[in-house]
Amino acid sequence: MKKIAFLFIVLFAFSISNAQKKDLTISQAVSGQYSFLYPGRLLGLKWVTNTEDYSIVNTQYNSIRIEPVLSKKKSVVIFLNNVNKALLTIKKDTMQYFYTYSWKNENTLIFDDNTRYIQYNYIDKKIKCIEKPDNAEGFEYCEANDNYAFTIDNNLYIFDDKGEKLAVTKDKDKNIVNGQTVSRSEFGILDGIFWSPKGNFLAFYRKDDSKVTDYPLIDISTIPASVKNTKYPMAGSTSEYLKVGIYNTKTKSTIFLDSDGEQGDQYLINPTWSPDEKYIILTRLNREQNHAKVELFDAKTGKHIKTLFEEKNDKWVEPEHEAYFIDNNTFIWQSERDNFNHLYLYDIEGDMKKQITKGKWVVTEIKDYNKEKKELYYMSTENSPLEANLYSVNIETGKTNRITKVDGTHNVGINISAGLIIDGYSNLTTPRVYNIIDLKGHIIKNLKTADNPLTDFNISMPEIGTIKAADGKTDLYYRLIKPTNFDKNKKYPVIVYLYGGTHTQLVKNSWMAGGQMWLYYMAEKGYVVFTIDNRGSGNRGFEFESVIHRNVGQNEMKDQIKGIEFLKKQSYVDKNRIGVHGWSFGGFMTVSLLENYSDIFKVGVAGGPVTDWKFYEIMYGERYMDMPKENPEGYALTSTLDKVSNIKSKLLVIHGGVDPTVVPQQSYQFLRECIKAGVQVDFFTYPTHEHNVRGKDRDHLMQKITEYFDDNL
Amino acid sequence: MKKIAFLFIVLFAFSISNAQKKDLTISQAVSGQYSFLYPGRLLGLKWVTNTEDYSIVNTQYNSIRIEPVLSKKKSVVIFLNNVNKALLTIKKDTMQYFYTYSWKNENTLIFDDNTRYIQYNYIDKKIKCIEKPDNAEGFEYCEANDNYAFTIDNNLYIFDDKGEKLAVTKDKDKNIVNGQTVSRSEFGILDGIFWSPKGNFLAFYRKDDSKVTDYPLIDISTIPASVKNTKYPMAGSTSEYLKVGIYNTKTKSTIFLDSDGEQGDQYLINPTWSPDEKYIILTRLNREQNHAKVELFDAKTGKHIKTLFEEKNDKWVEPEHEAYFIDNNTFIWQSERDNFNHLYLYDIEGDMKKQITKGKWVVTEIKDYNKEKKELYYMSTENSPLEANLYSVNIETGKTNRITKVDGTHNVGINISAGLIIDGYSNLTTPRVYNIIDLKGHIIKNLKTADNPLTDFNISMPEIGTIKAADGKTDLYYRLIKPTNFDKNKKYPVIVYLYGGTHTQLVKNSWMAGGQMWLYYMAEKGYVVFTIDNRGSGNRGFEFESVIHRNVGQNEMKDQIKGIEFLKKQSYVDKNRIGVHGWSFGGFMTVSLLENYSDIFKVGVAGGPVTDWKFYEIMYGERYMDMPKENPEGYALTSTLDKVSNIKSKLLVIHGGVDPTVVPQQSYQFLRECIKAGVQVDFFTYPTHEHNVRGKDRDHLMQKITEYFDDNL
Repeated sequence: MKKIAFLFIVLFAFSISNAQKKDLTISQAVSGQYSFLYPGRLLGLKWVTNTEDYSIVNTQYNSIRIEPVLSKKKSVVIFLNNVNKALLTIKKDTMQYFYTYSWKNENTLIFDDNTRYIQYNYIDKKIKCIEKPDNAEGFEYCEANDNYAFTIDNNLYIFDDKGEKLAVTKDKDKNIVNGQTVSRSEFGILDGIFWSPKGNFLAFYRKDDSKVTDYPLIDISTIPASVKNTKYPMAGSTSEYLKVGIYNTKTKSTIFLDSDGEQGDQYLINPTWSPDEKYIILTRLNREQNHAKVELFDAKTGKHIKTLFEEKNDKWVEPEHEAYFIDNNTFIWQSERDNFNHLYLYDIEGDMKKQITKGKWVVTEIKDYNKEKKELYYMSTENSPLEANLYSVNIETGKTNRITKVDGTHNVGINISAGLIIDGYSNLTTPRVYNIIDLKGHIIKNLKTADNPLTDFNISMPEIGTIKAADGKTDLYYRLIKPTNFDKNKKYPVIVYLYGGTHTQLVKNSWMAGGQMWLYYMAEKGYVVFTIDNRGSGNRGFEFESVIHRNVGQNEMKDQIKGIEFLKKQSYVDKNRIGVHGWSFGGFMTVSLLENYSDIFKVGVAGGPVTDWKFYEIMYGERYMDMPKENPEGYALTSTLDKVSNIKSKLLVIHGGVDPTVVPQQSYQFLRECIKAGVQVDFFTYPTHEHNVRGKDRDHLMQKITEYFDDNL
Repeated sequence: MKKIAFLFIVLFAFSISNAQKKDLTISQAVSGQYSFLYPGRLLGLKWVTNTEDYSIVNTQYNSIRIEPVLSKKKSVVIFLNNVNKALLTIKKDTMQYFYTYSWKNENTLIFDDNTRYIQYNYIDKKIKCIEKPDNAEGFEYCEANDNYAFTIDNNLYIFDDKGEKLAVTKDKDKNIVNGQTVSRSEFGILDGIFWSPKGNFLAFYRKDDSKVTDYPLIDISTIPASVKNTKYPMAGSTSEYLKVGIYNTKTKSTIFLDSDGEQGDQYLINPTWSPDEKYIILTRLNREQNHAKVELFDAKTGKHIKTLFEEKNDKWVEPEHEAYFIDNNTFIWQSERDNFNHLYLYDIEGDMKKQITKGKWVVTEIKDYNKEKKELYYMSTENSPLEANLYSVNIETGKTNRITKVDGTHNVGINISAGLIIDGYSNLTTPRVYNIIDLKGHIIKNLKTADNPLTDFNISMPEIGTIKAADGKTDLYYRLIKPTNFDKNKKYPVIVYLYGGTHTQLVKNSWMAGGQMWLYYMAEKGYVVFTIDNRGSGNRGFEFESVIHRNVGQNEMKDQIKGIEFLKKQSYVDKNRIGVHGWSFGGFMTVSLLENYSDIFKVGVAGGPVTDWKFYEIMYGERYMDMPKENPEGYALTSTLDKVSNIKSKLLVIHGGVDPTVVPQQSYQFLRECIKAGVQVDFFTYPTHEHNVRGKDRDHLMQKITEYFDDNL
């Protein structure tokens, strides 16, 4: 029966000609792009620790296959049933699926079952289980000591190797928050727990939010509705006060780094352990974000040893990366000091030994270091700003080598000891390929070459090109999507989809050119869909990005208008039917364009928009805008609130009802100004959603946006 | 110069023919209807205490003219300048206008200047001033003792006749609220301070809100936004706990009425003093609102003396009126016990002496009592349910007499001692007339006959008629507005404007038939605008109203559909273009109609809608729906939340962002359900507005609604 069905599908697929291709539904374009229309994934593909084997979860999430790369070894399969059999010897219930897993060592897996961590040795079938307490979050496992650190509410705890729960902090004041991310996760800060390499210490952030204002979000799931306050430090207001604690797992005592220094308001960024656990490197950045000091602390006493070096810039410095130690006395530092993010070699005294990488491109990530070969592996945009390729550099000779040979966007997992790399990539014409390659980039084994999941659908391929920015010299990359039945003699309405803010790039050399499938869906409906990454956007260097400084949106808009001028030169573009849509910074850009270039756009849809930077938070906002009192003319220039009367277009504003990132006040205040000025705009809210509308409800959102363009453009 | 301008206007007005008439702008139709398009008012028209004279404020609010009705006495003018001259002898600043004024006695006026009360004797120029403390509210003046009672926050205070401030209550717990209205101003309760007739006592409500939940409203005027909690007891939850305090102005001590009785949850309604200050009559109504006990209390001790009488009904009883004492031992009681609200004579023992009025119509208000003639003056709907006329009844003979002779909606001020009445009225063809009439209704003097302020505009006159309700027997009144250029051979789209809830009547025999001018504006734009007062609406008696019981909206919708059937029979109605709009209960009706009669309506606009009665408050909601646990099938039937998938029409939902009456959760929860079900609806919010959008912003609201119908119907 199964076989017959399979044959039928194959025959059916073969019989589809272009004429018979289907149009995507909105739900296929939105939810479908992450499920059945996503190019074939290898689930949970990773190296098995200390081996030359890799492992993959099957699509039913009930077995994990271990495969050798080179040898003739047979593959091994670990079945959920067997794990559950072992689990039932110590617990009453079983796992339903293989959720997130990792390798503790070559024989032992760690499963995260949402409610617990399960360690399972598939050789001797031994099993161990750590139940997560209620409200426990942010688990960080330490391989060296087999401990788990985690938080419950505002305090930090450990499950030691015997499974005993210890309280590291005992703060009753809820404004003191331990072990969680700080500074609203800016500066590359993603969590607040930092195990030392040998597991003798646990460093953690301690954040005092006493003086930070609450923003009240409304929870409608209760009767009556109730308030969920979120700490939200608005531009110019009092900020959080940070410390870094060091908990000694032997003595069970905690000291704090002597990090206050001479400064007042400051950021404490990315505490990093030296391999020998003697030191912690921590970056202190002033509130103005234009002067960073990279500091060395004694991890045992917390004493400040010295300032290793400093970085200053008239606009801003943005330390986003921890020190990358290659031995006890040497680390690699990432900096934009020469305009592009590059790697620098430092010793523990703070003396710079050399600049490791250099060029008009950026290092995006350090991946690994090969001690024997003295080779550092990193991702960069050297080949193209639209790509992510893996390179190596010999830190002694400075010789670099591009490892991933195929142009595109690569995602790699390096196995230094085996000299092998898992390389997953896509590009404009390649949905997805998984190879095992060697350190020179030669293909050792092809694991999967995914079929194009869209062959049955009417969907066009994007065009990528460049135009000059408003400065007349800088290349900007655009993505242009036309319908499959494009007729150059017709006139098409245009939808400009944009973001425009820092750190982000929308146009990429990857499958679908980095664009969400909805853009292609709209093209099939008869729109030309255009996106350009203006100056200010990510991965192009500091000069490119910093045009935003103190006048957010202004140069970005000028570049977007260059895109519009390009479009208007195309014979097939209906100049009178240009729409614009963006979310978050893109929502801000959308409203700003409708106010400042009101004759160009007929329709705008702004999601979760910033409408005045005074309502945005300190960490991101002040980096670009300074404080309101320091830059009143900049805040006035960039505010959308006093310019609502310029709006001549149809505008739909959408906001998540419990958006903790761009708070709903931004949209409410904008509506208030529109009402006062007698300006008609449309509004919708997703009452239970945060900054983005996720999950199934996203179909509703994109349907709403689609209808708004269909009805009004 | 002034004269010339006047002549010009007159000539201009005369020269306007029908063809030259102007169309109203939206702003004229909305804001204008309360200002220059409102039929000429006589400002502050009232009787001068103890005289046969009346007084009027001039249109600049800077003089008050006292006019005799009958004698040849000259009129007297009191100038603001003179009051201010006197005021400057005791204060540093002056009044800008004559704000609210009243007569303390024949020579002394009391002005309410927002920040103070000013007593001014225009004969001897003596002046006295009471400054209102910050946050003071709810001032109640007692003529007998010249004291002012008022509240600050949750406590009650008095300014005595010497201007000294005394604290009557000193509750620190903010949940204990003294001297304010209770029970969300249902049951005719409008405030919480009740001076005794001779000024020896002050009765007041004491409300304990400790167990009442807060509803969080968001104030966007602060940075960041903040929460303003409002006590909002949702259906089925714990309610307020009431007491009535009696403060003795001599002893400065307070006792409380022994009102707990044997009941648990209860309402304490309208405490009323007997003229001799010996007794207080208070109605105790059970939580279920189907059993009222009219109780007599000893005002000095607070002791319960006896239950005077009881009223019960399977559906509900709704005591809304205080006992109206005609002497120390006799009072008039209003009751719907025979289906229509009528007057009953009781003695202080609780024995009913007689039913004073009777008939298939309702008494709407007791106006005054003439002791000598034993005649009671009251307003009723006897002449027509669409009208308000003044009647007298002799409480001995029972003989009734209609005093206001002209059909329409009258508003009267009776001067018993002079035997004269100020009668202001309007009807379908009369914008506004002010007469002085005698107690038989004969016109003594015409004060003003206002011109039609709409003669320069294209605006049509409404048609009023009746159709049968869904029960096949009850007459329902409708109002139909067609454009002035109506052509019966054309097809017109229809807008149904409705409310549908209890206590309210939209169709009246008054100027514009009780309809807001926007309805006429819409008619001029080419819509037929229709309104019908369904069963459940006001002034038609208990049987008519109580079809709502336990299934709110259901019979009301059936009647509205009768209206639709009537419309569909009209040759000029475009059956495929019917829209519906209502606010509050009318918003609930709009959503309900779109869900339950989805084939009929193409467009709906629902303002501040109830979407599920479980989110509405106890006092109003439980009267009609009982508690959710007592009537689960009724709550399920009437909920709009689980029926969103039925919606096939365009629907715009609008809600005030800080609506404390129908809380925003109602709309948010509705949107949540629409999103879950993939139903597209539109939404807008007025972030700083409460249950209604008032002031200048109302122009924006009505423009939005207008555009929604224009774009979609």
